Amino acid sequence: MPPTITVFERSPDGGQGLARDMRVRWALEEVGQPYDVRLVSFDQMKQPAHLALHPFGQIPTFEAGDLVLFESGAIVLHLAERHEGLLPKDANARARAIAWMFAALNTVEPSIVELEQAPYVEGDQPWHEQRLPLLEGRIRARLGQLSNRLGDADWLDGLFSAGDLMMVMVLRRTDGMGVLEDFPNLVAYVARGEARPAYRRAFAAQRAVFTAGAAAGGHA
Amino acid sequence: MPPTITVFERSPDGGQGLARDMRVRWALEEVGQPYDVRLVSFDQMKQPAHLALHPFGQIPTFEAGDLVLFESGAIVLHLAERHEGLLPKDANARARAIAWMFAALNTVEPSIVELEQAPYVEGDQPWHEQRLPLLEGRIRARLGQLSNRLGDADWLDGLFSAGDLMMVMVLRRTDGMGVLEDFPNLVAYVARGEARPAYRRAFAAQRAVFTAGAAAGGHA
Repeated sequence: MPPTITVFERSPDGGQGLARDMRVRWALEEVGQPYDVRLVSFDQMKQPAHLALHPFGQIPTFEAGDLVLFESGAIVLHLAERHEGLLPKDANARARAIAWMFAALNTVEPSIVELEQAPYVEGDQPWHEQRLPLLEGRIRARLGQLSNRLGDADWLDGLFSAGDLMMVMVLRRTDGMGVLEDFPNLVAYVARGEARPAYRRAFAAQRAVFTAGAAAGGHA
Repeated sequence: MPPTITVFERSPDGGQGLARDMRVRWALEEVGQPYDVRLVSFDQMKQPAHLALHPFGQIPTFEAGDLVLFESGAIVLHLAERHEGLLPKDANARARAIAWMFAALNTVEPSIVELEQAPYVEGDQPWHEQRLPLLEGRIRARLGQLSNRLGDADWLDGLFSAGDLMMVMVLRRTDGMGVLEDFPNLVAYVARGEARPAYRRAFAAQRAVFTAGAAAGGHA
């Protein structure tokens, strides 16, 4: 039986593939594993049944037999360890690829989330506009360091890995912020990720949830 | 030859063990591996020699033979995979312990870092004081969910694991914020971590760097 992942019933990003299930979908496509999807509403995410799967009431979760996992990083790593295609065979290269997963999630993503969330958290506050340059500056500092390391390489450390998958997805969260464009090698890096057939299959699958919801006349 | 980790030459926290090298020191002590330490100054961290080890110019790094790693999460996981003591043998329990590492770093830590950094980033701005309740509220929301999941258990999922190590270290970053105290089971959880002999050895080792620096009459 294929694993089941949970995803938003109504995509808050309009099917742009920015929600964290996209990371898991992409990983599943890269390793060629089929999967089932269960849609959850924002209300359901806060209910005991979902909290039993995900203590922080988020998506995605991953259920495979007796195993229940949460955290997109942990799910992608789990898949990468059990199937070929997302981690190098060489032990040291493998450890470095995993380091890039952690770098994406713990060093690069938080500053991006801060800017992304600011309008929701404090968009009605007088200081919101004034804080934007500060928030953008923090992202640019990180992107500058990442850009320096990537240089003119295709991927962060040799062949495409789970580290690149996670970093590309995190960088995609800057969509519309106008910060990534300062770093042409990072723009090209994201485009390389988006061009992968596995990415495109995953993107189409998450998009289909949105278009189905839209077709059903769902409210936003 | 034992691995070498990099740590702050001058502890910015006064030897309280809040810097990220403490996570790696603790993991090394839990698995019984000796290690060497190389002190780096804030200036050195931004130089090419250190950036070659750590693209984001931070500590800790980990060098073992040909392997160079950065990101405390990646280093702890690397150690946990190669030595006994930080991950369960059962494959599913192992995946869940790793999920807690990611949860600590990607779901719990970012909101804590935001409040910790606020005085440095915008302490001189008129909105700094007004934003504090918002920042504290975000941390409390996460801690409440974590507290609910932990309940009256000793550790997050069965025996002590690398997931607990990382979560305890992340929760310790709330020191002085007055938020953890709302959740007595989390206070007790952190205390259980701090009582482990391996933690105490690691804490003493990082503290010794600070006291040596202080004895040398270093400026803050």
